Amino acid sequence: MRLQNKDLLDIESLSAEEIALVLDTAVSFKEIGTRAIKKVPTLRGRTVVNLFYEPSTRTRVSFEIAAKRLSADAINVSVSGSSVVKGESLLDTVRNLQAMAPDVLVMRHPASGAPYFVARRLQAAVVNAGDGMHEHPTQALLDAFTIRERKGALARLRVAIVGDLLHSRVFRSNLRLLTKMGSHVTVAGPPTLIPPEVEKLGARVAPSVEDALEGADVVMMLRVQKERMQGGYFPSVREYFRFFALTRARIERARGDVIILHPGPMNRGLEIESAVADGPYSVILDQVTNGVAVRMAVLYLLAGAGAEAS
Amino acid sequence: MRLQNKDLLDIESLSAEEIALVLDTAVSFKEIGTRAIKKVPTLRGRTVVNLFYEPSTRTRVSFEIAAKRLSADAINVSVSGSSVVKGESLLDTVRNLQAMAPDVLVMRHPASGAPYFVARRLQAAVVNAGDGMHEHPTQALLDAFTIRERKGALARLRVAIVGDLLHSRVFRSNLRLLTKMGSHVTVAGPPTLIPPEVEKLGARVAPSVEDALEGADVVMMLRVQKERMQGGYFPSVREYFRFFALTRARIERARGDVIILHPGPMNRGLEIESAVADGPYSVILDQVTNGVAVRMAVLYLLAGAGAEAS
Amino acid sequence: MRLQNKDLLDIESLSAEEIALVLDTAVSFKEIGTRAIKKVPTLRGRTVVNLFYEPSTRTRVSFEIAAKRLSADAINVSVSGSSVVKGESLLDTVRNLQAMAPDVLVMRHPASGAPYFVARRLQAAVVNAGDGMHEHPTQALLDAFTIRERKGALARLRVAIVGDLLHSRVFRSNLRLLTKMGSHVTVAGPPTLIPPEVEKLGARVAPSVEDALEGADVVMMLRVQKERMQGGYFPSVREYFRFFALTRARIERARGDVIILHPGPMNRGLEIESAVADGPYSVILDQVTNGVAVRMAVLYLLAGAGAEAS
Repeated sequence: MRLQNKDLLDIESLSAEEIALVLDTAVSFKEIGTRAIKKVPTLRGRTVVNLFYEPSTRTRVSFEIAAKRLSADAINVSVSGSSVVKGESLLDTVRNLQAMAPDVLVMRHPASGAPYFVARRLQAAVVNAGDGMHEHPTQALLDAFTIRERKGALARLRVAIVGDLLHSRVFRSNLRLLTKMGSHVTVAGPPTLIPPEVEKLGARVAPSVEDALEGADVVMMLRVQKERMQGGYFPSVREYFRFFALTRARIERARGDVIILHPGPMNRGLEIESAVADGPYSVILDQVTNGVAVRMAVLYLLAGAGAEAS
Repeated sequence: MRLQNKDLLDIESLSAEEIALVLDTAVSFKEIGTRAIKKVPTLRGRTVVNLFYEPSTRTRVSFEIAAKRLSADAINVSVSGSSVVKGESLLDTVRNLQAMAPDVLVMRHPASGAPYFVARRLQAAVVNAGDGMHEHPTQALLDAFTIRERKGALARLRVAIVGDLLHSRVFRSNLRLLTKMGSHVTVAGPPTLIPPEVEKLGARVAPSVEDALEGADVVMMLRVQKERMQGGYFPSVREYFRFFALTRARIERARGDVIILHPGPMNRGLEIESAVADGPYSVILDQVTNGVAVRMAVLYLLAGAGAEAS
Repeated sequence: MRLQNKDLLDIESLSAEEIALVLDTAVSFKEIGTRAIKKVPTLRGRTVVNLFYEPSTRTRVSFEIAAKRLSADAINVSVSGSSVVKGESLLDTVRNLQAMAPDVLVMRHPASGAPYFVARRLQAAVVNAGDGMHEHPTQALLDAFTIRERKGALARLRVAIVGDLLHSRVFRSNLRLLTKMGSHVTVAGPPTLIPPEVEKLGARVAPSVEDALEGADVVMMLRVQKERMQGGYFPSVREYFRFFALTRARIERARGDVIILHPGPMNRGLEIESAVADGPYSVILDQVTNGVAVRMAVLYLLAGAGAEAS
């Protein structure tokens, strides 16, 4: 079985079967990360280009490690130090990269929709590694992998997503994935940061964080993007922590076997208390580990399976 | 057969036979880029250092992909984030790199002549990836590859080179290569941007772009370096486009089977109309594809053939 | 035989036997750098992350080449362009990297002690590639390798270390190593830049550079960190050169077979005269060559031997 599209641009266009395929494929790749020799020849001679128009440590490194563990060649291009300073258009930049015959273009861009524009014009598989406030599909897939690993399934779970929903591509991808797989999503956060379309997309808006956490199987905290706290959207740091942070006291409302996710980087003491981030319910570092396995699965499904079949 | 010199610093010191050798070698490497497994073991265990004192996407990525497809280890060093901030001299920097036993040093530097200074003092093969306003030999070789691929030969062609000739290392390398191979070069551009020595180097200076294009087999457009438009050399953007841009109307003067090259990054709407850049005569993306093959050939001829013989 | 600790954080905690083990291991790796195919499969499938919070060319490139010649995958993370801008703590950054299962984390950080903080919390082997003004153990090991190669042993040598001792992690690591191996260290430099603890650590403080050089087998010059010359610690450039630079005249006081080391990057004409830096006694470029071999040995001993035993 294969993915329907040549690209992975969003969760929206993946079927539940495709999501399961990525996660099942990732299970076998996760084991490779535990070996002394963490390398398989699966994508030998394939070229993966990481094109990042926004700074990133974990996502870029995660894709780079995923590519290298599959024996692909990984090429990093970041905005600073690139010919973007010479004023070339995005389309010309990616057409030029395409002409060098990469198999996969992993792309992060501050403009929502940029990877679609690019993917329609390229033969290479495009993986959206975050586009503006839109989607970040591999993050949702690694979150799903982590949840499924702990809960056994992705259906019929009560998932609370808390924080700055408005600006979060992680939220949008997760909401789509979790509702598609049959789970129930409740959201909470500052009223100014709850996008109007959220109920249409299948989430329940809770009147408070406490209410959202009530009986939750899974709690997903979103990162406060501090640079946006000037904009009038956000309460003060003190007020944010008081009303919206995940604290030991609040977590008591969730189920006894709740798991806590955060996409990182965390603002300890702002959206999450350190005792919770490092506590027994936290699966935050599992997410990172699983991220490599999920990205290996995505690269394999987009660049490997087809080539083997041909 | 091998290249005479240990380095590739310019087109000037290559014989016609050596140019043909690079292009012939690149033909076989080009095929590798079309395979599912785009990798050969030719330069396994060789080290290629890309030392860039100017920002670049396409040239650095092209060399990096070329090295990796030959199984060489590629190490990138760019000025920002390097110890250049500590004030070390160029010579000390490259001597230090040399002491780590690279096989090839690919070098871009804003000072004309810098790679010569370096090459005389190093055992590693030095490839000039652009030095100031002087030469950019692998660009001329990939242009030649592209022309030969389409026209069958490099002799007796009428080639028009248009734009900012004065500041262009791409122009200088191409002029030398094309005249050496027996083609006829006509140039056109703003009078302030036509260097005085151009006729001595074998080019005809046309009174207008229209005249230069008349009956041309090949048109090579040069990039307007916008940062130089303040200097008094350049007309305004509007005037530049009006008199010197490659437009659909102007291209009618060339031969019916004309091909159009541009080294990129392009300023669409300034030196070239988008309809021309993306039109049927354009081989601009072929240049990029061929760039990888030509650079594989150069790395192989400088680092591979000799080591095999020893 | 193996190293006692999972990390290489300093010279202080290495025994003389461990130092000899690293140097002996490096001898066999040095030979690899002289081959046409400079690569062995020793660390295939291992992941080495270079995490640099300070700019560096030579150290980062040296570790990257060392990793690649051992067939490890090398991942570079530098501060600029990383999520450090998003304000994540050092500990969260390295925990995240740890979750991706690297075998070795090579780390440079401006804060003395940072690698210890990290190493205690990670399973990966941590190599200190320079922490603030504290230690830079692989530099001292490559210096020791270079000295031993020329002098046959590390015991009973008279070593003069000259310059800005106060700010130098290279000095601290070398002083510990050389006294541990039974050599005699004499230091000299501007009085404001001689740390008070230096005699307790076993060095003799000479009243002048001339006195320190008298009969020396080895002279190690330290880099003047020009950015610190504003602080009142330093004399003027002119005065520094006059009293503390290594000149042809001063070197006459040392033994006839003296060797001269400098960790680079050099300030020619400030702490060292060019005629000395490039002269017959200089082993400065040998240090760089040996750096790759020593780092291969360190990576192998930390990531390879154990995995082979298991």
